[in-house]
Amino acid sequence: MEEVASELLRRTDEAISRLGFNARAMLVGSVARGTWLRQEPDIDIFILFDEGLTREELEEKGLAVAREVAGAAGEEKFAEHPYVTMKFRGLDIDLVPCFDVADPKRIKSAVDRSPHHQRYVKEKLTPQLADEVLLLKQFATGIGVYGAELKKQGFSGYLCELLILHYGSFTKLVEAASRWLPGEMIDISSHYSDRSELKLMFENQPLVVVDPVDPNRNAAAAVSLQNFSIFVRACQDFQHRPGLKFFFPRQVRLLKPRELDRILKKRGTRIFCVVFRSPRVVPDVLFPQLRKTERAIVTRLAQEGFEVLRSDVWANSNSAILIELSVSSLPGVKTRVGPPPNVPAESFVREHLGSKSYLAGPMVDAAGRMVFELKREWTDALDLLKDILSQRASFGKHVAEAIARKYQIYEGAKLKALLRDSGFREFLSEYFTRRLPWYR
Amino acid sequence: MEEVASELLRRTDEAISRLGFNARAMLVGSVARGTWLRQEPDIDIFILFDEGLTREELEEKGLAVAREVAGAAGEEKFAEHPYVTMKFRGLDIDLVPCFDVADPKRIKSAVDRSPHHQRYVKEKLTPQLADEVLLLKQFATGIGVYGAELKKQGFSGYLCELLILHYGSFTKLVEAASRWLPGEMIDISSHYSDRSELKLMFENQPLVVVDPVDPNRNAAAAVSLQNFSIFVRACQDFQHRPGLKFFFPRQVRLLKPRELDRILKKRGTRIFCVVFRSPRVVPDVLFPQLRKTERAIVTRLAQEGFEVLRSDVWANSNSAILIELSVSSLPGVKTRVGPPPNVPAESFVREHLGSKSYLAGPMVDAAGRMVFELKREWTDALDLLKDILSQRASFGKHVAEAIARKYQIYEGAKLKALLRDSGFREFLSEYFTRRLPWYR
Repeated sequence: MEEVASELLRRTDEAISRLGFNARAMLVGSVARGTWLRQEPDIDIFILFDEGLTREELEEKGLAVAREVAGAAGEEKFAEHPYVTMKFRGLDIDLVPCFDVADPKRIKSAVDRSPHHQRYVKEKLTPQLADEVLLLKQFATGIGVYGAELKKQGFSGYLCELLILHYGSFTKLVEAASRWLPGEMIDISSHYSDRSELKLMFENQPLVVVDPVDPNRNAAAAVSLQNFSIFVRACQDFQHRPGLKFFFPRQVRLLKPRELDRILKKRGTRIFCVVFRSPRVVPDVLFPQLRKTERAIVTRLAQEGFEVLRSDVWANSNSAILIELSVSSLPGVKTRVGPPPNVPAESFVREHLGSKSYLAGPMVDAAGRMVFELKREWTDALDLLKDILSQRASFGKHVAEAIARKYQIYEGAKLKALLRDSGFREFLSEYFTRRLPWYR
Repeated sequence: MEEVASELLRRTDEAISRLGFNARAMLVGSVARGTWLRQEPDIDIFILFDEGLTREELEEKGLAVAREVAGAAGEEKFAEHPYVTMKFRGLDIDLVPCFDVADPKRIKSAVDRSPHHQRYVKEKLTPQLADEVLLLKQFATGIGVYGAELKKQGFSGYLCELLILHYGSFTKLVEAASRWLPGEMIDISSHYSDRSELKLMFENQPLVVVDPVDPNRNAAAAVSLQNFSIFVRACQDFQHRPGLKFFFPRQVRLLKPRELDRILKKRGTRIFCVVFRSPRVVPDVLFPQLRKTERAIVTRLAQEGFEVLRSDVWANSNSAILIELSVSSLPGVKTRVGPPPNVPAESFVREHLGSKSYLAGPMVDAAGRMVFELKREWTDALDLLKDILSQRASFGKHVAEAIARKYQIYEGAKLKALLRDSGFREFLSEYFTRRLPWYR
């Protein structure tokens, strides 16, 4: 790994000279710090340009260097800036142009922060602490919360490093984290004078770890409440009964069609899977949109009386939104509860007495509130789902466009057709046998 | 009416002399005050005995007098004391023995209060005010809240008289009551020095009207929150647009079997009617028990996930509990939500991981709480209803015994078989076309 990294650094510096630019290559990330896991063989070469350049100059010159290094093997990508990825000796390489900003609080783009993180960690992290980071990273991977990308919303490598630097060891972190509450705040470099200042700065975040190179930033901002809670539970359980299963849990057993049939029968729920071609956007754009769409569908179904038991999203070249309902059809009548006796009800009564959907009322319930019984608009969940997919209100933009082009709904046993896709099979297998990984 | 009452008074006094008792007859109630409605031709003759007698002596002597008056026409009944009812010239007569207690705060039984009410109202009520009482009684009858018996839980005749005495006229009462809030307190004889004292005395009652002959008693104690609210709504609507329809609303149109079929289809709900022989108890015992049983059934159904849309009870020689469900069957899986991350979950996990009903979990939901998916015990509402009827937990005592002997469940279109009973037909017709009477 280190050999490959050195060679790439050398090649990048050569490319810079050849092109006559004022810049330098820098190895950042876990490989640079000796904290990489076998599963993440990502080598990040940053190309640092003078901060006096314009954005356009940076992008132009940066891409020129990256193309010179990668040649035909390079593939251009785009996050905040364009960058280049390539395969090199079997490893994934990122070539990322950025500004060499002296003060990390005044960076021009998120990638400019990485060299500062690199310097901070490199300075503080002893080889012994690096081993503790590896333990933590494998733990987070095992329990399923490793990775800050929006698909995962978990713990970044940098966050793992900061936690080890703060607590001193994996064991001490586990001990502390098993008592964490949502809203936990860790100010490593003691930037804030008191907790109230911290609270004001970082509201409503399950975990706050103040970034020592930029105290306005929460290095744990990506962590969802769900993943925070999973981490805390894992620490509690590990404290109580440590084991390898936290680091290397059993794989999810892949379901055979017949097993899926048996599970579907046992659950007796109504399951819809909306499948469509994934829009051509990066996962960090796609997954938030998929979740937003999932939420819009679940919310509308619930509004119309169809309670969703569980739902999930998945994507590779196709995207899927899985919706599992407790109730698949509802009666033709619904109750509309109005005001209590002290609140005027005239307009409530006028509205519903003359309505097309009138069935019974006005009546007064045991709690004294005015009540009407009205015809329910949607009595079948599938009809409603199709309506939601035709309206696409509050869907993610690109997902809405993809669904507008074409989608298919697989219902119940029809899901078996999707098992042919190995990624989808894994998704469904995990969904229907879901357990926290260390309980598998 | 007055002729019949005088004749009965004379006969009762004669009977007392014949038997050589120290007692006297007294006409009480609406007939005595000129406030009776055509629909309530009840003549109440009270037989007042010296308060020095024992309860046994009172019952023995009282019944002797009543039997002497009624002869073979009499029928013995029992409330707090025994009393005798009879038909006389087409009218319903009650012959009620009671103690002649000087201080109404020291009565020995509820019936001893009636002579005091009689004297209080007779003294205050002018013929003009009596007309206003008649208006109010007919109003309360029309909107369906007249009667303090436990079947109705509405406004007694005495309460109507007190309200007119307090407000001065029907119109003034309507004006005031249209602004009543639940917890309204009226202290006619200004017994209490302030509202806080009143509040302390009569907690959690929708309407409090302090009984002027016994300030410890709420003359409106029978009024349910539902009937209180209906009364307030009726007053609001009457204020806004007065009309005869409040006093004489349209009758409920009786449904034909075919119409019932159409309504059931339109509602699309699952309807069960539990029918059994009414236990041999008076309506004031039966109806609270029927409602208690209804509540027990509805609560248990809801606990198991079967939400009840509406329910009702009814009785003549048979009793019926009607249960209308939004959802008739549920999937085989249910969600069991556990503690948030800061609360230990060990015992929660141990309990469900090893449980026979285990399906999936532990998992952590978006809100960070531990969740299991378990096998649902009851997936069909009828199976569950039969189980509830076999357990009879929290049922009314006599109702539980009657159901233990025998019951039948009529479901959906089978309800048509019950339309042959004219009382039941009226009950079902009103249930399925329910509207506040003045909106019919």
